Amino acid sequence: MVGWGKPGEGDWIDDASAPLLVDLYELTMSASWFAHRQGHSATFDLFVRKLPEQRNFLIACGLDQALHFLETFRFSGAAIDALRGLKLFDAGFLEWLGRMRFTGEVWAVPEGEAVFGAEPLLRVTAPLPEAQLVESFLLNAITFQTMIATKAARLAIACGGRRGFVDFSLRRDHGPTAALLGARAAWVGGAAATSNVLAAMRYGIPPSGTMAHSYVMGFDEEADAFRQFARAFRDRAVFLIDTWDTIEGARKSVQVARELKAEGIDVSGVRIDSGELAADARAVRRMFDEAGLANIQIVLSGDLDEHAIAKMVRDDVPADWFGVGTQLGTSADAPALGGVYKLAEEDGTPRMKLSRDKVTLPGRKQVFRFDDWSRDVIGLHDERIDGARPLLRCVMRDGRRVPGAESAWSLADARARCARTLKDLPEGLKALDRKVDYPVELSERLKRELEEVKARLHRG
Amino acid sequence: MVGWGKPGEGDWIDDASAPLLVDLYELTMSASWFAHRQGHSATFDLFVRKLPEQRNFLIACGLDQALHFLETFRFSGAAIDALRGLKLFDAGFLEWLGRMRFTGEVWAVPEGEAVFGAEPLLRVTAPLPEAQLVESFLLNAITFQTMIATKAARLAIACGGRRGFVDFSLRRDHGPTAALLGARAAWVGGAAATSNVLAAMRYGIPPSGTMAHSYVMGFDEEADAFRQFARAFRDRAVFLIDTWDTIEGARKSVQVARELKAEGIDVSGVRIDSGELAADARAVRRMFDEAGLANIQIVLSGDLDEHAIAKMVRDDVPADWFGVGTQLGTSADAPALGGVYKLAEEDGTPRMKLSRDKVTLPGRKQVFRFDDWSRDVIGLHDERIDGARPLLRCVMRDGRRVPGAESAWSLADARARCARTLKDLPEGLKALDRKVDYPVELSERLKRELEEVKARLHRG
Repeated sequence: MVGWGKPGEGDWIDDASAPLLVDLYELTMSASWFAHRQGHSATFDLFVRKLPEQRNFLIACGLDQALHFLETFRFSGAAIDALRGLKLFDAGFLEWLGRMRFTGEVWAVPEGEAVFGAEPLLRVTAPLPEAQLVESFLLNAITFQTMIATKAARLAIACGGRRGFVDFSLRRDHGPTAALLGARAAWVGGAAATSNVLAAMRYGIPPSGTMAHSYVMGFDEEADAFRQFARAFRDRAVFLIDTWDTIEGARKSVQVARELKAEGIDVSGVRIDSGELAADARAVRRMFDEAGLANIQIVLSGDLDEHAIAKMVRDDVPADWFGVGTQLGTSADAPALGGVYKLAEEDGTPRMKLSRDKVTLPGRKQVFRFDDWSRDVIGLHDERIDGARPLLRCVMRDGRRVPGAESAWSLADARARCARTLKDLPEGLKALDRKVDYPVELSERLKRELEEVKARLHRG
Repeated sequence: MVGWGKPGEGDWIDDASAPLLVDLYELTMSASWFAHRQGHSATFDLFVRKLPEQRNFLIACGLDQALHFLETFRFSGAAIDALRGLKLFDAGFLEWLGRMRFTGEVWAVPEGEAVFGAEPLLRVTAPLPEAQLVESFLLNAITFQTMIATKAARLAIACGGRRGFVDFSLRRDHGPTAALLGARAAWVGGAAATSNVLAAMRYGIPPSGTMAHSYVMGFDEEADAFRQFARAFRDRAVFLIDTWDTIEGARKSVQVARELKAEGIDVSGVRIDSGELAADARAVRRMFDEAGLANIQIVLSGDLDEHAIAKMVRDDVPADWFGVGTQLGTSADAPALGGVYKLAEEDGTPRMKLSRDKVTLPGRKQVFRFDDWSRDVIGLHDERIDGARPLLRCVMRDGRRVPGAESAWSLADARARCARTLKDLPEGLKALDRKVDYPVELSERLKRELEEVKARLHRG
């Protein structure tokens, strides 16, 4: 694809078009900085000001995609021509833009780590015009995956000791890339598998699937659908039993499972996607157990979320797996995080915003987490706080990923880190249906800095 | 990109990887159909069973991307190798899959047209294994854009006679492609412009932008930010005036606008992004008018949705433009549509689903809209209904777009069609805060078909 593509060509995005995925004002502001403050260095913080009402923590995610964007950032000649066509930019800026590579430094909270409101997930230090240009994409990349990983972590908490939940969201996700990256984030957050084949292959996630109602509808006899499917996929076959009547479907499953046993095939499970899931799962479990088919697993799906799953687990509903689509893939109860990207320092001078209802924190900062999970402290980047570890790590320097920092964006490490975090997280924060605020404090030095900048602004 | 890519390579999707964006069960079901019913033709309907509580209509969108997917569908050798690695599929199926192209016929509601619950947006007729394989992608492509175009149409209704609303959603969208395709859908639904430069270039949407708080924060003196920006962008400069204090920001805008007038620069407008938008807009408008700056426009933004905008328009708040981000790009009050893809016919035999709580309509169908908007009728494909026009058009035959059908997916036509639809739509349906159901009836012939299939199922 050259430059920005044309409609009807699939509307894909690639390394060449990604830098154009920018809000127009980033370009105009960058042009203004280029003209007047070319040599200035700036530090921006990317953070979520306040967690949604329905979230007690966030799971950081999306760093790998953010870093890839930064390290491949480059406007094609065609893109520059198109920008020239807007008649907004002078020749000097366009020439610089054509040469521009991201040369900055990035500190980030590793993927899979818990973060809270106001804590920087990313700290970008770069020449001001560069740092400005990458805002829109970084916010898009980090906040989307963080939102989905967080939702997945809540589902993981809900599943408790059950086998787990499977990402069924592909058809409900916001376009194709949301499905791919959403499956990635769900895996970081704790999904056991995905139905999405591309995501399974790209990220090494176990692929998972059962059968659809349309498949069963293709047969006059439900049992024939089960037979045909199991003979092809043997011990990986899961029967969908609610197309006509769940109990009747379970009865036929018993009959077919017995027939198939004689052929050396063990039916793996059944899925129930509608009706009274809890009652049906109990009835079906009993039927299977009484028929000596205790190894047949039960998959439940159909508009499930963490609340429905937690209730079923609490009520001892005999479900082994939960398939989750819409709620996971769109984080439907909190479908956006209010991520922002704020100037914190320019050429060594701390900056902040101080409007009627919104304040930002000045200076180059670090987030410190106390080992006993008593609180987090946001401090200045060069502080050390006893008993607390710094969360932000240097992941990019001079526009290149820092060797040795791979763990921050490695998918396997991110998933393990999230699992560990969910184990360590104070119980209160794991509540799924009540808001609990984790204490995030400011260090004494940061407080002093804040007061000094405020005083300077009021004089200004 | 070959096959399915690797992490850290940007995680883009292209024509070669798109066919892998499929739920695993589509592949297993397709393999089962391939083994047993290779020659069978099938018809599937893609529809939204029931509109969300907050929606009285939907605006069809996403057809161009759906057709592109179908016409370029082709598994690469690498993809087939990867599928072989799953050890689920036999050699015959994999060989067929490697050769498979979509050869089917598609009927679709043109983009920009209003549709209601249960009405097919897409009718796919193809050899059964082919029709099965494309389900996940088609649902993803059509329902996402339909959801966003619908949200945009509601915003267009809310804006009434104002200049309009601008898509500011890039940073809040669910990943990069959601931002691109969301901007496309917003344009179909009635957005006046977008901040998203890639979308602007690809689709010919006017790009739009103002300035960010971080820009203003970069100056000790707010007025200096305004001056520097306006000297670069002249009559396209819009000042963000709420970084510190909106009224103070407006006062400085007046001062700077007067200075710049002497330099031949007319400031275009100001944006207010926080605080009491309505009260501040009134105060700021008065200040500009009294200063002889009646031509300075006011842009409002900050967590706006159709309800907030409708209220301001009703209350005569002097706003010219509304910038809408999160609510538009994520359709946050209804972030998913329950789209389904259901078997309606196989080898000439009508099929339907009849479970406890969900029924589908059998046979090859057409949607008829009465010219007086009294009701829609879902009938059989070869019916004619006086006073009503069929909505589904043949857009693809033998896997190729039908020449002459371009209007169904042309972006310009889609946008014009949506604007016309919003003009014609009965007032009740345009209500933004109460649910109104449009009557969707079944034709006598479809009802008879339904009864016959039901009777057959009950005998079976």
